[in-house]
Amino acid sequence: MLTIERQVRFEEVDAAGILFFARYATYAHDAMERLFDGLAGGYVALTMKRRIGMPAVRLNCQFSAPLRYGDIACITVSTTRIGNRSVELGYRIVRKHDGVLAATLGHTVVTTDLDRLRSCDMPADVRALLTAHLDAAAP
Amino acid sequence: MLTIERQVRFEEVDAAGILFFARYATYAHDAMERLFDGLAGGYVALTMKRRIGMPAVRLNCQFSAPLRYGDIACITVSTTRIGNRSVELGYRIVRKHDGVLAATLGHTVVTTDLDRLRSCDMPADVRALLTAHLDAAAP
Amino acid sequence: MLTIERQVRFEEVDAAGILFFARYATYAHDAMERLFDGLAGGYVALTMKRRIGMPAVRLNCQFSAPLRYGDIACITVSTTRIGNRSVELGYRIVRKHDGVLAATLGHTVVTTDLDRLRSCDMPADVRALLTAHLDAAAP
Amino acid sequence: MLTIERQVRFEEVDAAGILFFARYATYAHDAMERLFDGLAGGYVALTMKRRIGMPAVRLNCQFSAPLRYGDIACITVSTTRIGNRSVELGYRIVRKHDGVLAATLGHTVVTTDLDRLRSCDMPADVRALLTAHLDAAAP
Repeated sequence: MLTIERQVRFEEVDAAGILFFARYATYAHDAMERLFDGLAGGYVALTMKRRIGMPAVRLNCQFSAPLRYGDIACITVSTTRIGNRSVELGYRIVRKHDGVLAATLGHTVVTTDLDRLRSCDMPADVRALLTAHLDAAAP
Repeated sequence: MLTIERQVRFEEVDAAGILFFARYATYAHDAMERLFDGLAGGYVALTMKRRIGMPAVRLNCQFSAPLRYGDIACITVSTTRIGNRSVELGYRIVRKHDGVLAATLGHTVVTTDLDRLRSCDMPADVRALLTAHLDAAAP
Repeated sequence: MLTIERQVRFEEVDAAGILFFARYATYAHDAMERLFDGLAGGYVALTMKRRIGMPAVRLNCQFSAPLRYGDIACITVSTTRIGNRSVELGYRIVRKHDGVLAATLGHTVVTTDLDRLRSCDMPADVRALLTAHLDAAAP
Repeated sequence: MLTIERQVRFEEVDAAGILFFARYATYAHDAMERLFDGLAGGYVALTMKRRIGMPAVRLNCQFSAPLRYGDIACITVSTTRIGNRSVELGYRIVRKHDGVLAATLGHTVVTTDLDRLRSCDMPADVRALLTAHLDAAAP
């Protein structure tokens, strides 16, 4: 489990004045990348040097409260299931100033050879990292 | 049912060279807005003048094939269920050049008073529009 | 000279409710890409197949009126100067509903080998295209 | 003078694999907002509560080196000129890992009543803050 904070930016809200719903997935991806900081070189080296990435095959979001410009989102990410090549990640996004749950997300990603865009075996260090963050009871 | 086309822009791909997964939801929202073009003034007048919007409470995405810069996405939107204040929309995103299904999305939105950010009754013209696009079999 | 129209999207405004200033440059790039539709395969083939792009080395923007959600921007692009490897493009962005000038932009780009990220000679077809759109009097 | 660090995100690069040029202005705005953290409540309270903002009237960018996914940008912002209602800000964006200058930006903003979108007098605390960061020799 890992929690990051991210403040809603001036340009991330929509014409209704709240964080645009698609950007919750961007926030989740941000937390996933920070999870991979546990690997040497992080997600940057994994994708850009080793050419292995974790594209999404499934995304589920439940939105329960809006986030406005300036709100700080606390994004907690855990691994909820580890398959052969795929992984399920769970996220809780909480509004910091009042502790209200803003969203929960489920995100299934697949270990992928980025040059061929085909699934590939999960490297041992990736599996170890994701296992260390396993929390089957999350999000 | 309504289908729009949208070309993947230069700045919409990610470091893996494919449409960033969160942007599929943006594409879906674009199609939803075009659906509302059936109302006088479209989604713009609904949100900015009448101050009624349709924020998401749930989003499900299944990603099945990548989209690259320049690919044309054909986004088909239908109403799949109409509740009292909520509506379920279904989307299919197809890669135009080869007809491959790139993603399907389910999107539940709630009629909302944007000044108070509380759910409100669905106006009759909104209900009529969404009913006209009802296709319970979509996807 | 080429003019495109682009409607300000729900998610493109900022917390002040107007098109975020950085997105004017995105709109300009969109018009530049449409200019390159005059080449076989457009900017997509130029960058992705021939691996030649036109990254910016300079950008000047004058903002004179805001654009709001739903406003249609008319973006006119011209070539204003053609150098050996660089080109200056000028843009005028006009708010369609009242004809008010929203912004003018100057944009210098350099013919670049995208694999090495170094400037390269301008291909003859690119030069011919840009010459056809030359209007030294444009902003 | 204030310097912030911001890492280039997975979804911020373009199809050429480098930070999309319009996003440099977003990075600059981010630094400007951090400058306003010197006010009580920051830029958030200024815009959302006091309804005073600083929209751009002019932006100049010189791009000198690309930024790639994972690169850390060091963004230094200073006030370069303070007028009656307008302010000029200068920015230097340096690539952290090798110290190379990636871009310099000049950015003129105007104190604006956000409800009427008209220029207004600069509040004393805003002027004091901007004066404290004055460095006429920047960007």
